[in-house]
Amino acid sequence: MEKRFTSADYHFMARALQLAAKGLYTADPNPRVGCVIVRYDQHTEGQVVGEGFHLRAGEPHAEIHALNAAGAAAEGATAYVTLEPCSHTGRTGPCAVALADANVARVVIAMVDPNPCVSGGGIKRLQEAGIQVNVGLLEQDARALNPGFISRMQRNRPFVRLKMAMSLDGRTAMGSGESQWITGPEARSQVQRLRARSNAILSGVESVIMDDSRLTVRADQLALDNAEVITQQQPLRVILDSRLRLPLAAACLREPGRTLIITTEHHSEEKRQKLEAAGADIKVLPADQQGRIDLVNMLSWLAEHEQINELLVETGATLAGALLDANMVDELQLFVAPTLLGGEARPLFALPGMTRMADQKRVTIKEIRAVGSDWRIIAEPRTD
Amino acid sequence: MEKRFTSADYHFMARALQLAAKGLYTADPNPRVGCVIVRYDQHTEGQVVGEGFHLRAGEPHAEIHALNAAGAAAEGATAYVTLEPCSHTGRTGPCAVALADANVARVVIAMVDPNPCVSGGGIKRLQEAGIQVNVGLLEQDARALNPGFISRMQRNRPFVRLKMAMSLDGRTAMGSGESQWITGPEARSQVQRLRARSNAILSGVESVIMDDSRLTVRADQLALDNAEVITQQQPLRVILDSRLRLPLAAACLREPGRTLIITTEHHSEEKRQKLEAAGADIKVLPADQQGRIDLVNMLSWLAEHEQINELLVETGATLAGALLDANMVDELQLFVAPTLLGGEARPLFALPGMTRMADQKRVTIKEIRAVGSDWRIIAEPRTD
Repeated sequence: MEKRFTSADYHFMARALQLAAKGLYTADPNPRVGCVIVRYDQHTEGQVVGEGFHLRAGEPHAEIHALNAAGAAAEGATAYVTLEPCSHTGRTGPCAVALADANVARVVIAMVDPNPCVSGGGIKRLQEAGIQVNVGLLEQDARALNPGFISRMQRNRPFVRLKMAMSLDGRTAMGSGESQWITGPEARSQVQRLRARSNAILSGVESVIMDDSRLTVRADQLALDNAEVITQQQPLRVILDSRLRLPLAAACLREPGRTLIITTEHHSEEKRQKLEAAGADIKVLPADQQGRIDLVNMLSWLAEHEQINELLVETGATLAGALLDANMVDELQLFVAPTLLGGEARPLFALPGMTRMADQKRVTIKEIRAVGSDWRIIAEPRTD
Repeated sequence: MEKRFTSADYHFMARALQLAAKGLYTADPNPRVGCVIVRYDQHTEGQVVGEGFHLRAGEPHAEIHALNAAGAAAEGATAYVTLEPCSHTGRTGPCAVALADANVARVVIAMVDPNPCVSGGGIKRLQEAGIQVNVGLLEQDARALNPGFISRMQRNRPFVRLKMAMSLDGRTAMGSGESQWITGPEARSQVQRLRARSNAILSGVESVIMDDSRLTVRADQLALDNAEVITQQQPLRVILDSRLRLPLAAACLREPGRTLIITTEHHSEEKRQKLEAAGADIKVLPADQQGRIDLVNMLSWLAEHEQINELLVETGATLAGALLDANMVDELQLFVAPTLLGGEARPLFALPGMTRMADQKRVTIKEIRAVGSDWRIIAEPRTD
């Protein structure tokens, strides 16, 4: 495979990435993919004859939209696609075949399919059809668009994003639990967008009870043009509740979308039935030695059985600390309010047993940015 | 007074401010002041004929340096000075008289003298000598250069800058007190510069004992060309020690410069004599109702009797929280290391008794900046 790319190649792949991002809030559980078809015959700088992106599962893939737009003009053209075209017949026909049937001359691909079982299959099909294939253009940008899909395919678990709102001195609430309005409306709008791009939101039952959280995406807080479309499909609400303590009157049970309670062994068949009658799905998963839900197993289960790409965790210090401790946090988003709550307020992470500096959890700060009067810090726990 | 300024006026006052900043680490307890003398006769854009800044107390003021450099060329020229020229005879003659004697035609002043007893006196002298005086050009920049001098003159207390090093989750040390190397070398170099620009460093005896702090400015860590000159005069080390617990072997007692122990009533005349023999100065100041040193009174005493302009506080959660609680912190500098220490680690601020969100200490974040692999947050406690 030839690895060199022209400046026009960069230009059109960047456009394909922009298109892919239009599926950010809706494509799941499929990946976000964009495609641009370009003819170079009449214009040396290239002319776009078709564009497409994958809007949602069950609808055509990006390549099909772009080919439909291009029609006969696709013949001899170059297709830019952010992810390797599929070669299997899923809910839509294989895109690699569609590209070959349209007689495109060249396909430029940002990244190969992360699914180890099908990776390279689409490229092989294209090459067998005599199409020139170039792979790896703007690959990092393409990967950044689909952290969840890649994680699910390669690690059989979701990309776990832990969001917390804290004071400048690292506190989430007063000692009493009082915590309303630590951060401002802009930060809350950003959190809404994090929820919207996630397939599921995870919380511990303690936090859900404390805040009576709804864990939903609210169209009016998204500040996005297509907010109504986005909120038609609510992320799955996952509540870890090893003793089935969620009240039947919990607000989240009355919201659109599913609430999934993960428990270890239900202590009361009556409560289980009542929760199910109130609208909850209930799943029993293995416990760890302390009788708590085994987090690593739980995450794999969510990937495998619920096809969760991106999981947003919104919870308290105990579950947040346990996830960190298990090295199961891929990204930390801290919304920092310009206030101090003092040493008696609630900590960000419990991390019990961490007593020596040698035990510290080092992170890499990727971004610090003002969000209204608050600040957002994006960090990645270091695995070394 | 005419308040309009030309672009040349801005240009030369900006230069005078640059010169004033050369006294940042050495001018105290005097203010940092710069002066530029400009002739407009031959060149309409103005020609600099003399420059000066105040290097250190006992040496000539900025205006005298600039007038000496200008010589006869000062006649008919415009003098730009960042602070109102003095009209009183201190350790040097009054600068207002020197400017009048040199027959300058116009004096442009960034800010009036903040000392309410002499404010306006220099301007009056200049005007009485027939000199045109314009005041208020780049005043905010001039004020920002001398927060400590202004605070001492107008509030009879130092400008209090509280520096803390913390983890991303707001922790300063493990529960055991283990804390070495939370932040990296670049952050420590920044702290050295904060020490160097301060007239005094304040710490609680508990912190000094825990870390055996030296509380000195080290030339090799400043990363400044004139580090050797700067470190000739060490900031005063002030240790709050109500029960005279500082060990005689404390490292800070063997360092160049003075160590001042502030205590309430010395419980042991013998310990007092031994500490004095070990090199400490000891001052008894009033206690508050809890038997701790009265912080507000202590700060006034430091301004009045030790001429402290800028006070750097480097201490633990208890004293830091008490200063915040007393609304005595003017600026907070948080050096944030990209690490998590967990909920059992030491808090940033004690703030005992803060139990309701309504009690929270809100701050305004002025700056967030990367410092090596750490981040520095500069914030101001809000007084509203």
